[in-house]
Amino acid sequence: MAKKAILLLSGGLDSATVLAIAQAEGYEMHALSFLYGQRHAHELEMAKRLVEKYKITEHKIIKVDLAAFQGSALTSTIPVPKHASVKEIGGEIPVTYVPARNTIFLSFALAYAESIAACDIFIGVNALDYSGYPDCRPEFIHAFEAMANLATAMSVQGKKIKIHVPLINMTKAEIIKKGLGLGVDYSLTTSCYDPGENGQSCGHCDACLLRRKGFAENNIEDTA
Amino acid sequence: MAKKAILLLSGGLDSATVLAIAQAEGYEMHALSFLYGQRHAHELEMAKRLVEKYKITEHKIIKVDLAAFQGSALTSTIPVPKHASVKEIGGEIPVTYVPARNTIFLSFALAYAESIAACDIFIGVNALDYSGYPDCRPEFIHAFEAMANLATAMSVQGKKIKIHVPLINMTKAEIIKKGLGLGVDYSLTTSCYDPGENGQSCGHCDACLLRRKGFAENNIEDTA
Repeated sequence: MAKKAILLLSGGLDSATVLAIAQAEGYEMHALSFLYGQRHAHELEMAKRLVEKYKITEHKIIKVDLAAFQGSALTSTIPVPKHASVKEIGGEIPVTYVPARNTIFLSFALAYAESIAACDIFIGVNALDYSGYPDCRPEFIHAFEAMANLATAMSVQGKKIKIHVPLINMTKAEIIKKGLGLGVDYSLTTSCYDPGENGQSCGHCDACLLRRKGFAENNIEDTA
Repeated sequence: MAKKAILLLSGGLDSATVLAIAQAEGYEMHALSFLYGQRHAHELEMAKRLVEKYKITEHKIIKVDLAAFQGSALTSTIPVPKHASVKEIGGEIPVTYVPARNTIFLSFALAYAESIAACDIFIGVNALDYSGYPDCRPEFIHAFEAMANLATAMSVQGKKIKIHVPLINMTKAEIIKKGLGLGVDYSLTTSCYDPGENGQSCGHCDACLLRRKGFAENNIEDTA
Protein backbone atom coordinates (compact mmCIF):
# COMPACT_ATOMS: atom_id res chain seq x y z
CA MET A 1 0.00 0.00 0.00
CA ALA A 2 1.32 3.43 -0.90
CA LYS A 3 2.47 5.67 1.93
CA LYS A 4 0.10 8.55 2.56
CA ALA A 5 1.32 12.13 2.40
CA ILE A 6 -0.26 15.53 3.00
CA LEU A 7 0.44 18.14 0.31
CA LEU A 8 -0.10 21.83 0.93
CA LEU A 9 -1.54 22.84 -2.43
CA SER A 10 -2.06 26.51 -3.22
CA GLY A 11 -2.61 26.16 -6.94
CA GLY A 12 0.66 27.93 -7.61
CA LEU A 13 3.71 26.89 -9.59
CA ASP A 14 5.68 25.68 -6.57
CA SER A 15 3.06 23.45 -4.99
CA ALA A 16 2.17 21.96 -8.41
CA THR A 17 5.82 20.99 -8.80
CA VAL A 18 5.90 19.48 -5.32
CA LEU A 19 2.76 17.52 -6.19
CA ALA A 20 4.53 15.97 -9.17
CA ILE A 21 7.67 15.23 -7.13
CA ALA A 22 5.74 13.52 -4.31
CA GLN A 23 3.62 11.56 -6.74
CA ALA A 24 6.74 10.41 -8.60
CA GLU A 25 8.07 9.19 -5.26
CA GLY A 26 4.99 6.98 -4.97
CA TYR A 27 3.04 8.70 -2.20
CA GLU A 28 -0.74 8.53 -1.99
CA MET A 29 -1.53 12.22 -1.96
CA HIS A 30 -3.98 14.04 0.30
CA ALA A 31 -4.09 17.69 -0.71
CA LEU A 32 -4.90 20.57 1.62
CA SER A 33 -5.82 24.07 0.46
CA PHE A 34 -7.03 27.16 2.30
CA LEU A 35 -9.58 29.83 1.66
CA TYR A 36 -8.05 32.32 4.06
CA GLY A 37 -9.36 35.65 2.88
CA GLN A 38 -6.69 35.96 0.19
CA ARG A 39 -7.40 38.42 -2.61
CA HIS A 40 -6.15 35.77 -5.03
CA ALA A 41 -8.70 33.12 -4.03
CA HIS A 42 -8.75 32.36 -7.75
CA GLU A 43 -5.76 30.10 -7.00
CA LEU A 44 -8.14 27.57 -5.46
CA GLU A 45 -9.73 26.98 -8.86
CA MET A 46 -6.29 26.00 -10.11
CA ALA A 47 -5.77 23.76 -7.08
CA LYS A 48 -9.00 21.95 -7.93
CA ARG A 49 -7.91 21.49 -11.55
CA LEU A 50 -4.58 20.06 -10.43
CA VAL A 51 -6.36 17.66 -8.08
CA GLU A 52 -8.51 16.47 -10.96
CA LYS A 53 -5.67 16.19 -13.45
CA TYR A 54 -3.39 14.28 -11.07
CA LYS A 55 -6.19 12.11 -9.64
CA ILE A 56 -5.35 13.10 -6.07
CA THR A 57 -6.98 10.73 -3.54
CA GLU A 58 -8.50 13.45 -1.39
CA HIS A 59 -8.63 17.25 -1.33
CA LYS A 60 -9.71 19.27 1.68
CA ILE A 61 -10.28 23.01 1.45
CA ILE A 62 -10.27 24.62 4.87
CA LYS A 63 -11.73 28.05 5.48
CA VAL A 64 -9.75 30.15 7.94
CA ASP A 65 -10.19 33.85 8.47
CA LEU A 66 -6.66 35.25 8.40
CA ALA A 67 -8.12 38.63 7.46
CA ALA A 68 -9.15 38.80 11.15
CA PHE A 69 -5.50 39.59 11.83
CA GLN A 70 -4.58 42.76 10.03
CA GLY A 71 -1.40 43.82 8.35
CA SER A 72 -1.04 41.94 5.06
CA ALA A 73 -1.67 43.18 1.55
CA LEU A 74 -2.88 39.69 0.62
CA THR A 75 -5.80 39.79 3.05
CA SER A 76 -6.75 43.46 3.09
CA THR A 77 -7.09 46.55 0.93
CA ILE A 78 -3.40 47.45 1.44
CA PRO A 79 -2.08 47.64 -2.15
CA VAL A 80 0.13 44.79 -3.42
CA PRO A 81 3.52 46.32 -4.35
CA LYS A 82 4.27 46.36 -8.07
CA HIS A 83 7.68 46.55 -9.71
CA ALA A 84 9.07 47.15 -13.16
CA SER A 85 11.45 44.23 -12.87
CA VAL A 86 12.55 41.39 -10.62
CA LYS A 87 15.67 43.34 -9.64
CA GLU A 88 13.56 45.57 -7.41
CA ILE A 89 12.53 42.61 -5.20
CA GLY A 90 14.33 41.90 -1.96
CA GLY A 91 15.66 43.53 1.15
CA GLU A 92 12.77 44.10 3.52
CA ILE A 93 10.04 41.55 4.23
CA PRO A 94 7.25 42.79 1.95
CA VAL A 95 3.74 43.82 2.95
CA THR A 96 2.40 40.71 1.20
CA TYR A 97 3.73 38.71 4.16
CA VAL A 98 0.76 37.18 6.05
CA PRO A 99 1.45 36.85 9.80
CA ALA A 100 2.17 33.22 10.75
CA ARG A 101 0.54 31.88 7.58
CA ASN A 102 2.81 28.91 7.00
CA THR A 103 2.76 28.10 10.72
CA ILE A 104 -1.04 27.95 10.56
CA PHE A 105 -1.09 25.99 7.28
CA LEU A 106 1.45 23.44 8.54
CA SER A 107 -0.48 23.10 11.81
CA PHE A 108 -3.59 22.10 9.88
CA ALA A 109 -1.47 19.76 7.76
CA LEU A 110 -0.26 18.17 10.98
CA ALA A 111 -3.85 17.64 12.17
CA TYR A 112 -4.72 16.15 8.77
CA ALA A 113 -1.65 13.89 8.84
CA GLU A 114 -2.46 12.59 12.30
CA SER A 115 -6.11 11.99 11.43
CA ILE A 116 -5.19 9.66 8.54
CA ALA A 117 -1.99 8.24 10.09
CA ALA A 118 0.31 9.90 7.54
CA CYS A 119 3.87 10.78 8.59
CA ASP A 120 4.83 12.91 5.58
CA ILE A 121 3.92 16.52 4.83
CA PHE A 122 5.02 18.25 1.61
CA ILE A 123 5.24 22.03 1.27
CA GLY A 124 6.58 24.04 -1.66
CA VAL A 125 8.53 26.69 0.22
CA ASN A 126 11.77 27.93 -1.25
CA ALA A 127 14.32 30.35 0.05
CA LEU A 128 16.13 31.49 -3.10
CA ASP A 129 13.82 33.16 -5.64
CA TYR A 130 11.27 34.21 -3.04
CA SER A 131 9.80 37.27 -1.41
CA GLY A 132 11.81 37.05 1.80
CA TYR A 133 9.10 35.56 3.99
CA PRO A 134 10.53 34.29 7.30
CA ASP A 135 8.32 31.19 7.25
CA CYS A 136 9.89 29.94 4.03
CA ARG A 137 13.38 29.52 5.51
CA PRO A 138 14.91 26.11 6.28
CA GLU A 139 15.48 27.01 9.95
CA PHE A 140 11.75 27.63 10.35
CA ILE A 141 10.87 24.30 8.71
CA HIS A 142 13.32 22.43 10.96
CA ALA A 143 11.87 24.08 14.07
CA PHE A 144 8.32 23.28 12.94
CA GLU A 145 9.24 19.63 12.40
CA ALA A 146 10.83 19.44 15.87
CA MET A 147 7.70 20.96 17.42
CA ALA A 148 5.40 18.66 15.41
CA ASN A 149 7.22 15.66 16.79
CA LEU A 150 6.24 16.70 20.32
CA ALA A 151 2.72 17.90 19.51
CA THR A 152 0.73 14.83 18.63
CA ALA A 153 -0.46 11.49 19.96
CA MET A 154 1.31 9.81 17.03
CA SER A 155 4.61 11.38 18.12
CA VAL A 156 4.12 9.98 21.63
CA GLN A 157 3.56 6.60 19.98
CA GLY A 158 6.95 6.89 18.28
CA LYS A 159 5.85 7.85 14.75
CA LYS A 160 7.99 10.59 13.23
CA ILE A 161 6.54 13.44 11.18
CA LYS A 162 8.71 14.58 8.30
CA ILE A 163 8.24 17.95 6.59
CA HIS A 164 9.43 17.59 2.99
CA VAL A 165 10.65 20.77 1.30
CA PRO A 166 12.02 19.53 -2.03
CA LEU A 167 12.23 23.07 -3.50
CA ILE A 168 13.93 24.77 -0.57
CA ASN A 169 17.27 25.35 -2.30
CA MET A 170 16.07 25.68 -5.88
CA THR A 171 15.79 28.81 -7.99
CA LYS A 172 12.49 29.45 -9.77
CA ALA A 173 14.12 28.36 -13.02
CA GLU A 174 15.28 25.08 -11.46
CA ILE A 175 11.80 24.46 -10.04
CA ILE A 176 10.21 24.91 -13.46
CA LYS A 177 12.84 22.72 -15.11
CA LYS A 178 12.23 20.00 -12.55
CA GLY A 179 8.46 20.26 -13.03
CA LEU A 180 8.67 20.17 -16.82
CA GLY A 181 10.77 17.03 -16.53
CA LEU A 182 7.95 15.47 -14.51
CA GLY A 183 5.33 16.61 -17.01
CA VAL A 184 3.76 19.39 -14.94
CA ASP A 185 1.25 21.41 -16.93
CA TYR A 186 1.97 24.90 -15.62
CA SER A 187 -1.01 26.30 -17.49
CA LEU A 188 -3.00 24.78 -14.61
CA THR A 189 -1.24 27.01 -12.09
CA THR A 190 -1.37 30.66 -11.12
CA SER A 191 1.11 32.80 -9.19
CA CYS A 192 -0.26 36.34 -9.18
CA TYR A 193 -0.94 38.00 -5.82
CA ASP A 194 -3.30 40.52 -7.34
CA PRO A 195 -5.21 38.98 -10.25
CA GLY A 196 -7.93 40.71 -12.23
CA GLU A 197 -11.57 39.76 -12.00
CA ASN A 198 -11.20 36.85 -14.39
CA GLY A 199 -8.01 35.62 -12.77
CA GLN A 200 -5.61 37.26 -15.21
CA SER A 201 -2.17 37.95 -13.76
CA CYS A 202 -1.09 41.53 -13.03
CA GLY A 203 2.43 40.90 -14.34
CA HIS A 204 4.16 43.18 -11.84
CA CYS A 205 3.79 41.76 -8.33
CA ASP A 206 6.72 39.80 -6.82
CA ALA A 207 5.08 36.48 -7.66
CA CYS A 208 4.46 37.40 -11.32
CA LEU A 209 8.00 38.74 -11.77
CA LEU A 210 9.68 35.71 -10.17
CA ARG A 211 7.56 33.39 -12.31
CA ARG A 212 8.42 35.28 -15.50
CA LYS A 213 12.13 35.17 -14.64
CA GLY A 214 11.91 31.41 -14.09
CA PHE A 215 10.30 30.75 -17.46
CA ALA A 216 12.66 33.17 -19.23
CA GLU A 217 15.70 31.39 -17.82
CA ASN A 218 14.32 28.14 -19.22
CA ASN A 219 13.78 29.84 -22.58
CA ILE A 220 10.18 28.74 -22.70
CA GLU A 221 6.87 30.46 -22.84
CA ASP A 222 4.55 30.54 -19.84
CA THR A 223 1.21 29.35 -21.18
CA ALA A 224 -0.77 30.14 -18.01
CA MET B 1 1.30 51.96 28.15
CA ALA B 2 0.44 48.42 29.21
CA LYS B 3 2.14 45.59 27.37
CA LYS B 4 -0.24 43.72 25.09
CA ALA B 5 -0.77 39.98 25.48
CA ILE B 6 -2.78 37.34 23.66
CA LEU B 7 -4.83 35.02 25.88
CA LEU B 8 -6.19 31.74 24.59
CA LEU B 9 -9.58 31.75 26.29
CA SER B 10 -11.77 28.67 26.13
CA GLY B 11 -14.25 29.66 28.81
CA GLY B 12 -12.93 26.91 31.07
CA LEU B 13 -11.56 27.01 34.58
CA ASP B 14 -7.91 27.03 33.51
CA SER B 15 -8.03 29.85 30.97
CA ALA B 16 -10.15 31.98 33.35
CA THR B 17 -7.41 31.59 35.95
CA VAL B 18 -4.74 32.52 33.41
CA LEU B 19 -6.80 35.59 32.49
CA ALA B 20 -6.73 36.74 36.12
CA ILE B 21 -3.00 36.02 36.43
CA ALA B 22 -2.10 37.94 33.28
CA GLN B 23 -4.34 40.85 34.20
CA ALA B 24 -2.79 40.99 37.69
CA GLU B 25 0.60 41.21 35.95
CA GLY B 26 -0.62 44.34 34.17
CA TYR B 27 -1.01 43.11 30.60
CA GLU B 28 -3.53 44.62 28.20
CA MET B 29 -5.42 41.48 27.24
CA HIS B 30 -6.51 40.41 23.77
CA ALA B 31 -8.52 37.22 24.06
CA LEU B 32 -8.76 34.56 21.36
CA SER B 33 -11.38 31.81 21.30
CA PHE B 34 -12.28 29.17 18.72
CA LEU B 35 -15.47 27.72 17.38
CA TYR B 36 -13.85 24.55 16.08
CA GLY B 37 -16.69 22.11 15.83
CA GLN B 38 -16.50 21.19 19.51
CA ARG B 39 -19.57 19.55 21.01
CA HIS B 40 -19.16 21.84 23.99
CA ALA B 41 -19.42 25.09 22.02
CA HIS B 42 -21.39 26.27 25.04
CA GLU B 43 -17.98 27.18 26.51
CA LEU B 44 -17.85 30.18 24.17
CA GLU B 45 -20.78 31.74 26.00
CA MET B 46 -18.71 31.53 29.16
CA ALA B 47 -15.72 33.03 27.36
CA LYS B 48 -17.89 36.00 26.34
CA ARG B 49 -19.08 36.49 29.91
CA LEU B 50 -15.50 36.43 31.18
CA VAL B 51 -14.50 39.01 28.56
CA GLU B 52 -17.33 41.25 29.71
CA LYS B 53 -16.66 40.79 33.42
CA TYR B 54 -12.92 41.42 33.11
CA LYS B 55 -13.30 44.28 30.61
CA ILE B 56 -10.93 42.61 28.14
CA THR B 57 -9.72 45.05 25.46
CA GLU B 58 -10.53 42.82 22.49
CA HIS B 59 -11.97 39.35 21.90
CA LYS B 60 -11.70 37.51 18.61
CA ILE B 61 -13.61 34.30 18.00
CA ILE B 62 -12.16 32.37 15.09
CA LYS B 63 -14.10 29.66 13.29
CA VAL B 64 -11.98 26.68 12.26
CA ASP B 65 -13.33 23.36 11.12
CA LEU B 66 -11.34 20.80 13.08
CA ALA B 67 -14.18 18.32 12.54
CA ALA B 68 -12.79 18.08 8.98
CA PHE B 69 -10.05 15.93 10.49
CA GLN B 70 -11.63 12.91 12.08
CA GLY B 71 -10.72 10.99 15.18
CA SER B 72 -11.73 13.01 18.23
CA ALA B 73 -14.73 12.53 20.50
CA LEU B 74 -14.87 16.30 20.95
CA THR B 75 -15.57 16.98 17.27
CA SER B 76 -17.55 13.93 16.21
CA THR B 77 -20.19 11.47 17.34
CA ILE B 78 -17.59 9.24 19.01
CA PRO B 79 -18.84 9.04 22.63
CA VAL B 80 -16.97 11.01 25.30
CA PRO B 81 -15.65 8.49 27.86
CA LYS B 82 -17.34 8.65 31.26
CA HIS B 83 -15.93 7.43 34.56
CA ALA B 84 -17.22 6.82 38.05
CA SER B 85 -14.26 8.61 39.61
CA VAL B 86 -11.11 10.56 38.83
CA LYS B 87 -9.00 7.49 39.66
CA GLU B 88 -9.99 5.93 36.35
CA ILE B 89 -8.34 8.75 34.36
CA GLY B 90 -4.86 8.35 32.95
CA GLY B 91 -2.63 5.98 31.07
CA GLU B 92 -3.52 6.19 27.39
CA ILE B 93 -4.12 9.43 25.52
CA PRO B 94 -7.95 9.58 25.52
CA VAL B 95 -10.26 9.79 22.52
CA THR B 96 -11.10 13.38 23.50
CA TYR B 97 -7.67 14.37 22.18
CA VAL B 98 -8.11 16.61 19.11
CA PRO B 99 -5.27 16.19 16.58
CA ALA B 100 -2.87 19.16 16.71
CA ARG B 101 -5.44 21.37 18.43
CA ASN B 102 -3.07 23.38 20.62
CA THR B 103 -0.60 23.68 17.72
CA ILE B 104 -3.36 25.22 15.62
CA PHE B 105 -4.64 27.46 18.44
CA LEU B 106 -1.15 28.72 19.27
CA SER B 107 -0.46 29.33 15.57
CA PHE B 108 -3.47 31.63 15.37
CA ALA B 109 -2.36 33.28 18.63
CA LEU B 110 1.00 33.90 16.97
CA ALA B 111 -0.67 35.55 13.98
CA TYR B 112 -2.78 37.68 16.33
CA ALA B 113 0.29 38.63 18.39
CA GLU B 114 2.24 39.68 15.33
CA SER B 115 -0.68 41.68 13.91
CA ILE B 116 -0.89 43.86 17.07
CA ALA B 117 2.84 43.80 17.90
CA ALA B 118 2.38 41.76 21.09
CA CYS B 119 5.22 39.53 22.26
CA ASP B 120 3.36 37.59 24.95
CA ILE B 121 0.94 34.69 24.57
CA PHE B 122 -0.81 33.10 27.56
CA ILE B 123 -2.24 29.57 27.48
CA GLY B 124 -3.74 27.60 30.34
CA VAL B 125 -2.22 24.21 29.68
CA ASN B 126 -1.20 22.08 32.61
CA ALA B 127 0.52 18.75 32.80
CA LEU B 128 -0.47 17.45 36.23
CA ASP B 129 -4.24 17.06 36.67
CA TYR B 130 -4.91 16.71 32.95
CA SER B 131 -6.10 14.21 30.41
CA GLY B 132 -2.67 13.26 29.07
CA TYR B 133 -2.77 15.36 25.91
CA PRO B 134 0.69 15.58 24.29
CA ASP B 135 0.19 19.25 23.39
CA CYS B 136 -0.14 20.25 27.05
CA ARG B 137 3.40 19.17 27.99
CA PRO B 138 6.19 21.66 28.73
CA GLU B 139 8.45 20.15 26.04
CA PHE B 140 5.79 20.89 23.41
CA ILE B 141 5.40 24.48 24.62
CA HIS B 142 9.18 25.04 24.52
CA ALA B 143 9.38 23.64 20.98
CA PHE B 144 6.47 25.81 19.86
CA GLU B 145 8.13 28.91 21.31
CA ALA B 146 11.41 28.08 19.53
CA MET B 147 9.52 27.62 16.24
CA ALA B 148 7.51 30.83 16.77
CA ASN B 149 10.74 32.76 17.13
CA LEU B 150 11.75 31.73 13.61
CA ALA B 151 8.31 32.00 12.01
CA THR B 152 7.49 35.67 11.91
CA ALA B 153 8.62 39.02 10.59
CA MET B 154 8.77 40.30 14.16
CA SER B 155 11.21 37.51 15.06
CA VAL B 156 13.46 38.53 12.15
CA GLN B 157 13.30 42.07 13.56
CA GLY B 158 14.63 40.78 16.89
CA LYS B 159 11.39 40.74 18.92
CA LYS B 160 11.00 37.60 21.05
CA ILE B 161 7.71 35.77 21.45
CA LYS B 162 7.15 34.29 24.89
CA ILE B 163 4.56 31.58 25.53
CA HIS B 164 3.41 31.92 29.15
CA VAL B 165 2.12 28.76 30.82
CA PRO B 166 1.58 29.82 34.44
CA LEU B 167 -0.43 26.67 35.29
CA ILE B 168 1.91 24.11 33.75
CA ASN B 169 3.08 22.58 37.05
CA MET B 170 -0.04 23.17 39.14
CA THR B 171 -2.64 20.63 40.26
CA LYS B 172 -6.29 21.49 39.62
CA ALA B 173 -6.65 22.31 43.32
CA GLU B 174 -3.70 24.71 43.17
CA ILE B 175 -5.13 26.38 40.05
CA ILE B 176 -8.48 26.97 41.77
CA LYS B 177 -6.76 28.24 44.93
CA LYS B 178 -4.69 30.67 42.86
CA GLY B 179 -7.77 31.85 40.97
CA LEU B 180 -9.85 32.33 44.12
CA GLY B 181 -7.01 34.43 45.55
CA LEU B 182 -7.28 36.64 42.45
CA GLY B 183 -11.05 36.85 42.74
CA VAL B 184 -11.95 34.60 39.81
CA ASP B 185 -15.67 33.89 39.65
CA TYR B 186 -15.65 30.25 38.58
CA SER B 187 -19.41 30.27 38.13
CA LEU B 188 -18.57 32.05 34.85
CA THR B 189 -16.62 29.02 33.61
CA THR B 190 -17.47 25.57 32.30
CA SER B 191 -15.33 22.47 31.98
CA CYS B 192 -17.59 19.67 30.72
CA TYR B 193 -16.68 17.97 27.43
CA ASP B 194 -20.21 16.70 26.92
CA PRO B 195 -22.74 19.18 28.30
CA GLY B 196 -26.50 18.83 28.03
CA GLU B 197 -28.64 21.00 25.81
CA ASN B 198 -28.71 23.86 28.29
CA GLY B 199 -25.02 23.63 29.05
CA GLN B 200 -25.35 21.57 32.22
CA SER B 201 -22.27 19.48 33.01
CA CYS B 202 -22.36 15.69 32.62
CA GLY B 203 -20.38 15.14 35.84
CA HIS B 204 -18.50 12.10 34.60
CA CYS B 205 -16.15 13.11 31.77
CA ASP B 206 -12.46 13.66 32.56
CA ALA B 207 -12.90 17.42 32.66
CA CYS B 208 -15.86 17.25 35.09
CA LEU B 209 -14.07 14.80 37.38
CA LEU B 210 -10.83 16.78 37.47
CA ARG B 211 -12.77 19.96 38.21
CA ARG B 212 -14.74 18.31 41.02
CA LYS B 213 -11.52 16.96 42.56
CA GLY B 214 -9.98 20.43 42.47
CA PHE B 215 -12.89 22.05 44.28
CA ALA B 216 -13.15 19.19 46.79
CA GLU B 217 -9.48 19.54 47.67
CA ASN B 218 -10.11 23.22 48.40
CA ASN B 219 -13.12 22.28 50.54
CA ILE B 220 -15.35 24.63 48.62
CA GLU B 221 -18.46 24.24 46.55
CA ASP B 222 -18.37 24.63 42.77
CA THR B 223 -21.12 27.12 42.01
CA ALA B 224 -20.94 26.72 38.22
